[in-house]
Amino acid sequence: MTITQAPTTSGTSSTGPDLGRATHLSCRECGAVVPLGPHYACLECFGPLEVTYDFGTITRERIESGPRSIWRYRDLLPVPEHVATIPNTDPGLTPLVRADNLARELGLKSLWVKNDAANPTHSFKDRVVAVALAAARELGFKVLACPSTGNLANAVAAAAARAGIRSYVFIPSDLEQQKITTSAVYGTTLVAVQGNYDDVNRLASELAGEHDDWAFVNVNVRPYYAEGSKTLAYETSEQLGWRVPPQVVIPIASGSQLTKVDKAFHELLRLGLVDGDGPAIFGAQAAGCSPVAAAYKDGHEVVRPVRPDTIAKSLAIGNPADGPYVLDVVRRTGGAVEDVTDDEVVEGIRLLARTEGIFAETAGGVTVAVLAKLLREGLLDPGAETVVFNTGEGLKTLDAVAPVVGPTGTIAPSTEAFHDLVQN
Amino acid sequence: MTITQAPTTSGTSSTGPDLGRATHLSCRECGAVVPLGPHYACLECFGPLEVTYDFGTITRERIESGPRSIWRYRDLLPVPEHVATIPNTDPGLTPLVRADNLARELGLKSLWVKNDAANPTHSFKDRVVAVALAAARELGFKVLACPSTGNLANAVAAAAARAGIRSYVFIPSDLEQQKITTSAVYGTTLVAVQGNYDDVNRLASELAGEHDDWAFVNVNVRPYYAEGSKTLAYETSEQLGWRVPPQVVIPIASGSQLTKVDKAFHELLRLGLVDGDGPAIFGAQAAGCSPVAAAYKDGHEVVRPVRPDTIAKSLAIGNPADGPYVLDVVRRTGGAVEDVTDDEVVEGIRLLARTEGIFAETAGGVTVAVLAKLLREGLLDPGAETVVFNTGEGLKTLDAVAPVVGPTGTIAPSTEAFHDLVQN
Repeated sequence: MTITQAPTTSGTSSTGPDLGRATHLSCRECGAVVPLGPHYACLECFGPLEVTYDFGTITRERIESGPRSIWRYRDLLPVPEHVATIPNTDPGLTPLVRADNLARELGLKSLWVKNDAANPTHSFKDRVVAVALAAARELGFKVLACPSTGNLANAVAAAAARAGIRSYVFIPSDLEQQKITTSAVYGTTLVAVQGNYDDVNRLASELAGEHDDWAFVNVNVRPYYAEGSKTLAYETSEQLGWRVPPQVVIPIASGSQLTKVDKAFHELLRLGLVDGDGPAIFGAQAAGCSPVAAAYKDGHEVVRPVRPDTIAKSLAIGNPADGPYVLDVVRRTGGAVEDVTDDEVVEGIRLLARTEGIFAETAGGVTVAVLAKLLREGLLDPGAETVVFNTGEGLKTLDAVAPVVGPTGTIAPSTEAFHDLVQN
Repeated sequence: MTITQAPTTSGTSSTGPDLGRATHLSCRECGAVVPLGPHYACLECFGPLEVTYDFGTITRERIESGPRSIWRYRDLLPVPEHVATIPNTDPGLTPLVRADNLARELGLKSLWVKNDAANPTHSFKDRVVAVALAAARELGFKVLACPSTGNLANAVAAAAARAGIRSYVFIPSDLEQQKITTSAVYGTTLVAVQGNYDDVNRLASELAGEHDDWAFVNVNVRPYYAEGSKTLAYETSEQLGWRVPPQVVIPIASGSQLTKVDKAFHELLRLGLVDGDGPAIFGAQAAGCSPVAAAYKDGHEVVRPVRPDTIAKSLAIGNPADGPYVLDVVRRTGGAVEDVTDDEVVEGIRLLARTEGIFAETAGGVTVAVLAKLLREGLLDPGAETVVFNTGEGLKTLDAVAPVVGPTGTIAPSTEAFHDLVQN
């Protein structure tokens, strides 16, 4: 393990980027320290870099008096103090919905749904993109870009439009028309690449190397981008009246969101903003792409890549970068990782819609179905307050439920025909 | 004109419904007074009934300390004081987005977009349905229902699911699969009726007559339902720092929203919650269904029904019930009614998405395109602060833009191919 000298390019420097209370990047593998900058891999061991802070004092009052968006937590993010004054999509502070009907149906004492479908482009990606954009401006980037197959593409294209900067979104050329439309409408330069997502990703990495002033949100500014997921935990705690819920169920794609939510709860505890312990954190995957669940169940510390085959496309990362860290978090906190079949995913979507009037995308169906499965298996305490994350909007994955929901019946336009149908 | 005696079933009665500060219904045509109850047409002249209040004193402080939803305005709505404690979708307080990019492009000094795509089912219908449901409970109804072809069906099905009550949604049997899915998923009894929307509507009215305890939100509890639109004006004023914007552009379907927004601004003025004058109110229609625009331009006081033919389906009401009242409001306030072609609607959607990162449904495209047209024609003052309403979400009307937006290009997965495409 090599510890390099603490960087001079801190947030307080007059010449460096103003990234608030962030002080440097540190390697999650070897602990090496790197100055704040457009870095994403450790120069010593190629491990992933993470933003480190010197928070000082942060009070509930200061947060509560802030903007009604993720920017109320700006002191906890790698963004400048004045971030909310720069045009952006102002994501966050999405509803934490008390889910008594669903709790009753599942035999849970107390359940909440953190509903990120309420974000500007209707997924949690608006959070991470907003933080990436704010940091990227400070780091001197001029263009926003990403490889993506869905939610991220929407979020990047919309955020760039609102910020008035150029964007490039790279997608596989065989993507469904619907997903093309929802990004193209924002006027981004949408580049369809002949190949699969891995090919698109590789091209993005090559172009990031060529263009010094292009911020590929999930590539060369990934350490800043990933910090955006912390706001899910901050909001959940504040919305619960500055409490940490005992149990949280979170979907796993790369695993970044789950690990950042764990990090955020512990930041709140360390800062004295909440009392008690961190939550037990549970991970949710679709059986058609469940490398982390498989490793968890087998007691492994590494994650063996798989080839995804599931309707939960937004979670279909076969080689999740943060998989090993997810295993650490889940085991440390007393959680678990579980997976569900595509049929269960669809039933999860329908269950949440029928009981709470919330229409989730497939990732939300995964999370609700895993919640139900964990309860059946006795892995989750039905007597402990639980929060599940719905990270996206059902309107984006209509194809998942279209085959199984439809009219109760079709009738002639008469009251008699109606009575025949419903027998009342 | 007949004035019947003031009702005894007021909000303060111990036996009547608790509808807050609402006191009675009054006929908009003849002024006749009817007790609060499940009435929607005047017994004297068959004119439409409207909720009347005795507001007493209402302060900014009381509103500002209320829930972060439409229920902060509960004193101004026909709902009980404790309305926010009953499970509902908690719509409202949607973002008022400062639209500097769009303003610059159109040559406007100051522009805001009130973005109702942020509501729970992503249209303004969540507002009116929530108020209808709250009033319907107090009036003794047990079931929620509606005839609809889209946004209203989504809102009713979701609201009933969340409230834990039974619902019936009636749709034309030839509705697009996508619109069927987005309502059916909530577990409503979805009845496909062989016929057009008029047939569906007629059947709904017949069933409302048969079932004393079924609240068809837009039929037999329409006076209460319609009041929900007032919250758009309350929120806009509060979000502007308790100011009335000089100019507002509003889409017209039945015309109810526009007339209620006018009513609401004047309530705020009368209560001393804002200073100054009411805004000039402008109405927006699609050329394929523009009976109100036609009457406005021809100087008529009545509206001649048309057969709708436009991509803006959520505005396609050929015989708008509130058409004459819209003409009154627009003429009284110094506004206008304008219409735009379907091509302009699509351009309006793209313009808003490209400049502000907001993806509107076709109704929002109509409003933005009408704003642009009013400016070109000199009918709207470019130097006066303006608010436009986006009443719904682009994900619900993808077909409108799908034919005209797409990838910038398709390339092989190489940096050379990318450079050839973008010439950089």
